[in-house]
Amino acid sequence: MARYRSTAWRAVEFAAMRYFKSDNTAAVSAEILQALGAANQGVALAYGADRWSESLDAAFGKFFGREVRVFAVSSGTAANSLALATLCPPWGTVLTHAEAHIERDECGAPEFFTGGAKLSLVGGAGAKIQPRDLAARLAWFEPHVHGVQPRALSITQATERGAIYTPAEIRALADIAHEKGMTVHMDGARFANALVAQQVSAADLTWKSGVDVLSFGVIKNGGMNAEAVVFFDPARVADFEFRRKRAGQLFCKGRYAAVQLLAYLETGLWQRNAERANRLAARIAAAAPQLLSEPFATNQVFMKLGDERIAALSGEFGFYPWGPTGSGEARFVCSWDTPEQDVDALCAALTKLR
Amino acid sequence: MARYRSTAWRAVEFAAMRYFKSDNTAAVSAEILQALGAANQGVALAYGADRWSESLDAAFGKFFGREVRVFAVSSGTAANSLALATLCPPWGTVLTHAEAHIERDECGAPEFFTGGAKLSLVGGAGAKIQPRDLAARLAWFEPHVHGVQPRALSITQATERGAIYTPAEIRALADIAHEKGMTVHMDGARFANALVAQQVSAADLTWKSGVDVLSFGVIKNGGMNAEAVVFFDPARVADFEFRRKRAGQLFCKGRYAAVQLLAYLETGLWQRNAERANRLAARIAAAAPQLLSEPFATNQVFMKLGDERIAALSGEFGFYPWGPTGSGEARFVCSWDTPEQDVDALCAALTKLR
Amino acid sequence: MARYRSTAWRAVEFAAMRYFKSDNTAAVSAEILQALGAANQGVALAYGADRWSESLDAAFGKFFGREVRVFAVSSGTAANSLALATLCPPWGTVLTHAEAHIERDECGAPEFFTGGAKLSLVGGAGAKIQPRDLAARLAWFEPHVHGVQPRALSITQATERGAIYTPAEIRALADIAHEKGMTVHMDGARFANALVAQQVSAADLTWKSGVDVLSFGVIKNGGMNAEAVVFFDPARVADFEFRRKRAGQLFCKGRYAAVQLLAYLETGLWQRNAERANRLAARIAAAAPQLLSEPFATNQVFMKLGDERIAALSGEFGFYPWGPTGSGEARFVCSWDTPEQDVDALCAALTKLR
Amino acid sequence: MARYRSTAWRAVEFAAMRYFKSDNTAAVSAEILQALGAANQGVALAYGADRWSESLDAAFGKFFGREVRVFAVSSGTAANSLALATLCPPWGTVLTHAEAHIERDECGAPEFFTGGAKLSLVGGAGAKIQPRDLAARLAWFEPHVHGVQPRALSITQATERGAIYTPAEIRALADIAHEKGMTVHMDGARFANALVAQQVSAADLTWKSGVDVLSFGVIKNGGMNAEAVVFFDPARVADFEFRRKRAGQLFCKGRYAAVQLLAYLETGLWQRNAERANRLAARIAAAAPQLLSEPFATNQVFMKLGDERIAALSGEFGFYPWGPTGSGEARFVCSWDTPEQDVDALCAALTKLR
Repeated sequence: MARYRSTAWRAVEFAAMRYFKSDNTAAVSAEILQALGAANQGVALAYGADRWSESLDAAFGKFFGREVRVFAVSSGTAANSLALATLCPPWGTVLTHAEAHIERDECGAPEFFTGGAKLSLVGGAGAKIQPRDLAARLAWFEPHVHGVQPRALSITQATERGAIYTPAEIRALADIAHEKGMTVHMDGARFANALVAQQVSAADLTWKSGVDVLSFGVIKNGGMNAEAVVFFDPARVADFEFRRKRAGQLFCKGRYAAVQLLAYLETGLWQRNAERANRLAARIAAAAPQLLSEPFATNQVFMKLGDERIAALSGEFGFYPWGPTGSGEARFVCSWDTPEQDVDALCAALTKLR
Repeated sequence: MARYRSTAWRAVEFAAMRYFKSDNTAAVSAEILQALGAANQGVALAYGADRWSESLDAAFGKFFGREVRVFAVSSGTAANSLALATLCPPWGTVLTHAEAHIERDECGAPEFFTGGAKLSLVGGAGAKIQPRDLAARLAWFEPHVHGVQPRALSITQATERGAIYTPAEIRALADIAHEKGMTVHMDGARFANALVAQQVSAADLTWKSGVDVLSFGVIKNGGMNAEAVVFFDPARVADFEFRRKRAGQLFCKGRYAAVQLLAYLETGLWQRNAERANRLAARIAAAAPQLLSEPFATNQVFMKLGDERIAALSGEFGFYPWGPTGSGEARFVCSWDTPEQDVDALCAALTKLR
Repeated sequence: MARYRSTAWRAVEFAAMRYFKSDNTAAVSAEILQALGAANQGVALAYGADRWSESLDAAFGKFFGREVRVFAVSSGTAANSLALATLCPPWGTVLTHAEAHIERDECGAPEFFTGGAKLSLVGGAGAKIQPRDLAARLAWFEPHVHGVQPRALSITQATERGAIYTPAEIRALADIAHEKGMTVHMDGARFANALVAQQVSAADLTWKSGVDVLSFGVIKNGGMNAEAVVFFDPARVADFEFRRKRAGQLFCKGRYAAVQLLAYLETGLWQRNAERANRLAARIAAAAPQLLSEPFATNQVFMKLGDERIAALSGEFGFYPWGPTGSGEARFVCSWDTPEQDVDALCAALTKLR
Repeated sequence: MARYRSTAWRAVEFAAMRYFKSDNTAAVSAEILQALGAANQGVALAYGADRWSESLDAAFGKFFGREVRVFAVSSGTAANSLALATLCPPWGTVLTHAEAHIERDECGAPEFFTGGAKLSLVGGAGAKIQPRDLAARLAWFEPHVHGVQPRALSITQATERGAIYTPAEIRALADIAHEKGMTVHMDGARFANALVAQQVSAADLTWKSGVDVLSFGVIKNGGMNAEAVVFFDPARVADFEFRRKRAGQLFCKGRYAAVQLLAYLETGLWQRNAERANRLAARIAAAAPQLLSEPFATNQVFMKLGDERIAALSGEFGFYPWGPTGSGEARFVCSWDTPEQDVDALCAALTKLR
């Protein structure tokens, strides 16, 4: 059998480069490291019974302005998959965008965790699902045993093409889903970036608009190795805790995951880091607005450069060509710690390309 | 549906106590925190393509004295389950001890990761499998489609009752397993404690004695949130990497897992921490040798105290009553950072009990 | 990879033999074939919407004296596994006997259908579970996320060693199970044999004694290829129908399964066939009562013959040596169509062995 | 939880109707019933060791002109899913048409049997996959652990919209698949109808064109409850037999499945029945060729009638409106035993509609 190494990702030596490939290549914010050190005192009960883990519900409840149940896991894939496994039975289906991370970049993790539930795909520009497309896709399902039953909707905030859903847009989708008896999951790997890009509250962008469960991303935006799964309705938690344990995602030294989540919220890190990343990306978008292939919104910039320009930039800058071979599109991502001078250089290079 | 919170574990307030419940309530060693800080510089390729992750094979290869393939995961449960899923097909069975962690304490994780393989149990004192018992259990399986097929043996080092397997003992079991076409997995959650308890090498205790894959425990012995899966035969890796990704155990900021494993080996932390934990536990065992219910070997001490003595000690010391209700047995575990004065106090109390 | 053919079962040419290996080598009763022919008229709605399938609930309801929901499947393994998958979540466990068919002879089917639930084993003579043993096994489980949770009890009627549970015995086990929030499944592969062996009603032996779901065996006792899953509480059906479809066990020409079940009940075939099989087996048991290794009860006879007698009988008679190699035990099974003269011959041979 | 009964399919009383809904509402051919009766003599070894089951390889080998391995299962869903589970690992993906039965009508069975492999969909008129579309879809997959890996292609013959693949068309698709290291599965639920519609051999339509595994449909075309899974390369069988047992699809009275498959081939039933069904359908297509919404090829006729005509015909004829609500399309299927006078009546009604 052919075997693949993760290093298949590595096309080039990156040491010499200014790096815009992804926000997950960033380091960890000082606030997170400090919190880890501060928690490193004496014994703490294992498996989530420590005082940091036990204060997660209250901290996130304050952030979201309502009672919530919160659980730490070690990756966004785990967060998404455990949430979906709790919401969707094996004979159910999760409606999601064809370009969603859960469909394209998790090696079938949702299918694994759910026991074989199906992802049913919806198209749409900007990796955003439109209400009419969701409704049309749902019309194919019939309430009989021959087909899988729609049980959950999963949307990504910000989307895989950098777009954001407004509260009104989320509400329109959630209403369709809820009317069918489905629940609404939000993959918030870049939730903070989407939140600071709008003049709305965290509540507006989630439960007030119909989101039932949120994968609350921390790692990309300054965290080390903890994400949060947030249930806005405690009743939806159901058997999540058994599933988390069974998936190897209940950590014996749980304080080191919980304290990252707490520091992220309580020091305002989520906001500072997201605002900086978005601001830097905005500079890139503004440097060559005529090349944008997606409207700019958060910390991702998509441009139709053409293969020649991509080749020209590849010497100095690290970034992903996007889409199928020959699309000529490129993605630039800024993180919380992208050097300002790297952005200066990229903007200058893009300006020259005009 | 009834729901259980991890806090069901918490019977009492522990702040006032001297704590011997488990080594997983310990803090993280300074060497680990320092290594995390040192790795926190600039960008690093994501998903295991960073230079720390890429040097794991070499570092563990040096430690074990042969070519190995090594992968970081976030918990011992994940390490065990991913290893077993790679070694055992859904229609196979893993032979293991009836008191093994994979059977008793992982909420069915091996069954989940393998797609429903069965654990077939063997008894034996000290949570140790004896060759004759393994052979007898294997005699029940027949090579036809009506029954599951034995495909892997999993032994724990040190065992769930603190015992150790010598190289010769491992070899005897491995020979039986290999002769049946099975592979040998070692759950090494306390591998370092078992290793420093014997005058043998890491190689002697693993591949030289027939171990094919090792869950190499780091967290209990000073680590934060990274364990290693070590394949002694690169060909056995098979589809492990797909399974890891699909399980949400491939971390985008992989350097923070890898660097823990590197620091653990390269600073000698594994040895210092294990030796201290074992030494402290030896003091406890020596304080009341007549009460020992298991021969002392590593950092766990099992004593037949009786319910009255258990109650008497419970005011000052935190520890687990062990076995079924009414067994009168208790377990005391020392970790790398158990305070010496807590051991003094426990030894004094035990001496008084005589 | 080694591959096994079902023919591994075939040790010898059986054409010349008098055959007592199993009741599943029997032919199909004339009543079943006639019913298949009678149903073979014109079109019938597919996938269980035919009039035969739709009358199953009423026919079985009459048989059992209460409202039931009944579903046809094509094998006992499918019946057991689909029932258990409906009753037990992936993180649950099914308590069952160590010699149960679901543990020993279904290649892990319950684990497959449940998504990896664990079977937890209880010992006991005659492959029968005793209340005290069930209670003792249950005492090991704790209501926290670290271990699987007991959710179902599965008992076999008649057992894999030919024993029967009386209504009072079932009640004692069911009370223990129900008190723990578990449900009770009965593997009734030989339910009719157990029923006619006692002066009780079908209701007494099932729901009146606490059985929640029954795998109602038909094939061994004269059927062709249909078994029934009977839910005594319609609310327990839950998502069974989705699981059945998803398992390839919802048949497009459903009438040919349903009509077998109807004929089995409505012509009294279940009783005639079971009585004959039991009567023939009773003759065998009576021919050498001193050799019986299990008390005789239904259509299976277990004898401690010793290897020499087994060898001596093997020339003329087909039967299984039972248990581990060297046990010296043998099993003789009579079916509805075992020739009377074959029993004559076996009795004569056994008498000579005295 | 909402529960659905299969009877959701039943919109109307069908007794008074001429019935064109599906070929799976047909009865069973006399040849099949006769074969079942003939096999009903004396004992036969269980679980596929009977002489009928053991002659399957030879009988199908003769039919296909090469060595094959053949296994009986009880439904088309089981045939497809078990085949795909053998060909595709959990982290793999099966490329198939968006309207394929395995995607739309099996309630996620392939995902269940494979342990959560993904189906990746390709569009195309007539529910047929075109080589360029397959290649374009495959271009999205990359050989790294982040995404599922394409491991099998599944095509339906005849397709869900009545179209056929020629040997050359199959070869073009198979070449693309094989070049990517994938295997080729054919869902032949209506294989006989597709075969008699072309002047080619069974070998031409399968292994000679690159098909690796065939779900050979028998039930729709006159069988009762047995389909065949045919492996053209014995090495591909791999662990299929364990998976079949584990899925409850290894039948104890195996002769009654095997003998249906043998009778289907050896009496020429496959050909007679398929030719009659196709001929009747051809009459319907010819009655209103201007209304055809798909080119006519086998025993399915698709017409764009509009909702008014659909309503008008629904009083006398049973058939499915097809596609999403409001499509105005209808499907008429003829089976081996559709009454000639029903076709007369439908043709007359269609002619009047012109």
